[in-house]
Amino acid sequence: MTDTPNGWPQGFHAWTGRIGLREESGDDLSLIASDRPCTSAAVFTRSLFAGASVLVNRRHAPVQQTRAVVTVAKNANVATGEQGERDAVEIAGLAGAAVGASPEQTLISSTGVIGRLLPMPAVRDALATAAQQWSEHRDASPLDVAAAMMTTDTRPKTSAATVGHARIVGVAKGVGMLEPDMATMLAYLTTDAEVPADLLDTALRTAVDATFNCLSVDSDTSTSDTVALLANGAAGPVDPDEFTAAVAAVCLDLTRQLASDGEGATKLIQVTVTDARDRAQAKRVAKAVVNSPLVKTAVHGADPNWGRVVMAVGKCMDDTDIDPGRVRVAFGGLEVYPQHAGDDQLALLTEVMKQPEVPITVTLGTGTAAVTVYGCDLSAEYVRINADYTT
Amino acid sequence: MTDTPNGWPQGFHAWTGRIGLREESGDDLSLIASDRPCTSAAVFTRSLFAGASVLVNRRHAPVQQTRAVVTVAKNANVATGEQGERDAVEIAGLAGAAVGASPEQTLISSTGVIGRLLPMPAVRDALATAAQQWSEHRDASPLDVAAAMMTTDTRPKTSAATVGHARIVGVAKGVGMLEPDMATMLAYLTTDAEVPADLLDTALRTAVDATFNCLSVDSDTSTSDTVALLANGAAGPVDPDEFTAAVAAVCLDLTRQLASDGEGATKLIQVTVTDARDRAQAKRVAKAVVNSPLVKTAVHGADPNWGRVVMAVGKCMDDTDIDPGRVRVAFGGLEVYPQHAGDDQLALLTEVMKQPEVPITVTLGTGTAAVTVYGCDLSAEYVRINADYTT
Repeated sequence: MTDTPNGWPQGFHAWTGRIGLREESGDDLSLIASDRPCTSAAVFTRSLFAGASVLVNRRHAPVQQTRAVVTVAKNANVATGEQGERDAVEIAGLAGAAVGASPEQTLISSTGVIGRLLPMPAVRDALATAAQQWSEHRDASPLDVAAAMMTTDTRPKTSAATVGHARIVGVAKGVGMLEPDMATMLAYLTTDAEVPADLLDTALRTAVDATFNCLSVDSDTSTSDTVALLANGAAGPVDPDEFTAAVAAVCLDLTRQLASDGEGATKLIQVTVTDARDRAQAKRVAKAVVNSPLVKTAVHGADPNWGRVVMAVGKCMDDTDIDPGRVRVAFGGLEVYPQHAGDDQLALLTEVMKQPEVPITVTLGTGTAAVTVYGCDLSAEYVRINADYTT
Repeated sequence: MTDTPNGWPQGFHAWTGRIGLREESGDDLSLIASDRPCTSAAVFTRSLFAGASVLVNRRHAPVQQTRAVVTVAKNANVATGEQGERDAVEIAGLAGAAVGASPEQTLISSTGVIGRLLPMPAVRDALATAAQQWSEHRDASPLDVAAAMMTTDTRPKTSAATVGHARIVGVAKGVGMLEPDMATMLAYLTTDAEVPADLLDTALRTAVDATFNCLSVDSDTSTSDTVALLANGAAGPVDPDEFTAAVAAVCLDLTRQLASDGEGATKLIQVTVTDARDRAQAKRVAKAVVNSPLVKTAVHGADPNWGRVVMAVGKCMDDTDIDPGRVRVAFGGLEVYPQHAGDDQLALLTEVMKQPEVPITVTLGTGTAAVTVYGCDLSAEYVRINADYTT
């Protein structure tokens, strides 16, 4: 249902440029904007230390008319106090002006190191270039923008879907500090569908709940998580149900790309918990499994140590209705508990765990709810990347 | 206040032997027993998948007369169903008989791989040897027993303290799957103090709450956690307050040894949260920091990326009384937030983070409670150890 976008929906344009935050060459500043008014929806991190960009956006988001998005990569502008907030306000103003949007219509994101002030002279220079070039050179592709948003991502993430005469095009970034709560690191969806703001909001929240909020790379929640959906109506109205499904499909595709590219990841882990009391219980148990460092390292080494999955389920100590005697655990179609795996089965399990996607299913026997969450294995490379990130 | 034990308290003896679960040579079975009746206290894992040994112990612990402890290393006897429980009952019976204790007076522990039945013929042979040798060769030292309990531990953990004319001697093991809740992997304390069972219970629970329950290596809670304290009275009565303090000191010493020897660990991380609303909030925030993979990897690489500490505090999203404007963060005596660290300070911070013990202090400003928790850094070695544990 999703495909790779080779352009933006009608009326959307983009530009990328360089502040100089990225040590090596490469763009670290990006702008996406619609040439006509938009309805919009957005969700942000619930972190208590939400960044300055998120704080500024929260004041503008209720207007639901975002038509421009500016992103700074490699510096999160978080824990930077009042100066950081003044900087975010200034960037939103300059970026909006460059593309003909008011500050209230401009969403700002920043992602990278926490606790460093932005080099504002360089940021102002880059935004002045953007203003000069916007009318003639606003031809950056979704792939260009996704690349300019990257921090330790190894590849840009984009996805698209068609709904009626309209397109939905999304870009995302995020590899570590990735257990979103309300939204993931950064993901923007644009569409030329004509969608009322309330439907847009519902479609986005429904999709985020089942996709980005079911993603975890390392159980650390970012201070900058933002997902936004901008609709400019250029392609006319679409069927609401089809639109909602298409938004969910693009979010799921991006979520899976984010999980697969988790810092140091070599495999995607997909944990489905079924027969749970309610969705909250299913998600709690699924997250306990997908976040367990011992499950993650076993998957990394294709070590058929399935006992770690029951250990992780056992950590949900407040779910006292879970009875070990009714729990079932399977890898792919291969049940490992309570059926005791013989040596033949362990060899088969090793093969399942060597695949690029490892599906784990836990049947709780406490009800009928189900949730799937997405994560990745834990490798020595994750340690290497994060042991010297700022230095 | 603590020291290294060179023997057991009066009236306690020990023996170690080999079942053959440990691939390389080395003992994997141990027995500790008192030659006279004891009062006892014990706490166990809250895991929903508590192992067969824990299930059996829970039935006996309320009697508070444990005088013998038998430990099997390298196989946890967890997720092994009714057969596993029958095996645990049989081992407790045979081990107790070997040292002259009833099954109800015998505590059994097992630690290692989950989901494998014990090789009972070999276990029975080893326990028969124990029964033959107990009267003549019950001369294993605390260090011998701690070594026989090890799984991926790199060194045995022992600690002792003197209280009045009595001694308290403790042994422990645990390196991974180590975020105890109610108790740590395995820790046994013996004393020849004469202590009523209710004081023993209070002293143990108080100590465990501030020590083992404040320890986390990888946020994974074991299915086998057990802490027990046996008192045989051979040295007569002691001052209750001094006794309680001495038990806490031994537990803290063992906790610090466990954290330092966390799987792949190169450093101990000590996170103190002060000025919190209550102890629960302080512990929640401290655990969020000490368990953050991004904080752990930064400490590993001595990367002065202090922003990850505020990120981890920000994850405690239900603590809405925490105001980023009142939070303070320091490494050792070096404040890094809200004071913005210049390059000089970052260089100093790097030096602090290179030490074998890295102390992090978070001042919340929501009250007056404080808690210290203990953890370790995350290294590539943790991944290596756990990517091929069973194979």
